Amino acid sequence: MEFTVFSDEHYMNLAYKEALKARDQGEIPVGAVVVCGRTIVAKTFNQTEKLQDVTAHAEILAVTAAANYLGAKYLTECTLYVTLEPCPMCAGAISWSQLNRLVYAASDPSKGFSNYQFQQQGLLHPKTEVVSGLLADSCKNLIEDFFRELRN
Amino acid sequence: MEFTVFSDEHYMNLAYKEALKARDQGEIPVGAVVVCGRTIVAKTFNQTEKLQDVTAHAEILAVTAAANYLGAKYLTECTLYVTLEPCPMCAGAISWSQLNRLVYAASDPSKGFSNYQFQQQGLLHPKTEVVSGLLADSCKNLIEDFFRELRN
Repeated sequence: MEFTVFSDEHYMNLAYKEALKARDQGEIPVGAVVVCGRTIVAKTFNQTEKLQDVTAHAEILAVTAAANYLGAKYLTECTLYVTLEPCPMCAGAISWSQLNRLVYAASDPSKGFSNYQFQQQGLLHPKTEVVSGLLADSCKNLIEDFFRELRN
Repeated sequence: MEFTVFSDEHYMNLAYKEALKARDQGEIPVGAVVVCGRTIVAKTFNQTEKLQDVTAHAEILAVTAAANYLGAKYLTECTLYVTLEPCPMCAGAISWSQLNRLVYAASDPSKGFSNYQFQQQGLLHPKTEVVSGLLADSCKNLIEDFFRELRN
């Protein structure tokens, strides 16, 4: 597979590398990258174990880090790449950030935000474009392998 | 109204005082308190403006601060008092924390977590007991007054 710089594939591959860092630290392997224009403004991975903080998901850390970098709390010009479908907590954060575009790899049928509805409205901001499925198999395998090893 | 120490009213009154601090700093006035046994392990208020971070809701800060105090990421022995019904982001965080008890004051018909459903399940952990309505009028008035002044 060939990766072109500035493509969704390129940035999702970077998010995947973040997920590998999580795995290597004993964290559930989820990684995220936030891009604004052609600038990477955040690279994060899940740190719930290290920080002993359930809110330290890759996406929450990414939203905070990106806002910090930009000096502004809204991410209306940004794309967030994440290796797993965000949970409702993270979707809520993404919604508050008014993110321009969300690209996620693997779906999460049990914990994913897309399951939740309220009056035909989902958890995301209505203006946020959503793309899914990119590198989905690799990102899904990473998590399944992680839990398989954990059980052994 | 009389406040008894160690009662829900007492702790909600403390959360209300946190919300007043938020208001005095130009933040949307929402406050939270986490209690474990008879120990207050977190007192927080909304800081999204000061921190320029949409994730800095009172509840997210409270979950993080309580876990930090306890040195453990699960809040299975804790009660969280908050002056406004949590949004989906905060409900998601509360769910991950496996909180024992959530007590909130005013309902939030437009942004509140209780609107969202997935297969008869809400956004909270099934074991979390929920109580609402305590000091609701005071907490609601605080927010309405804040927005009224903002518009003037």
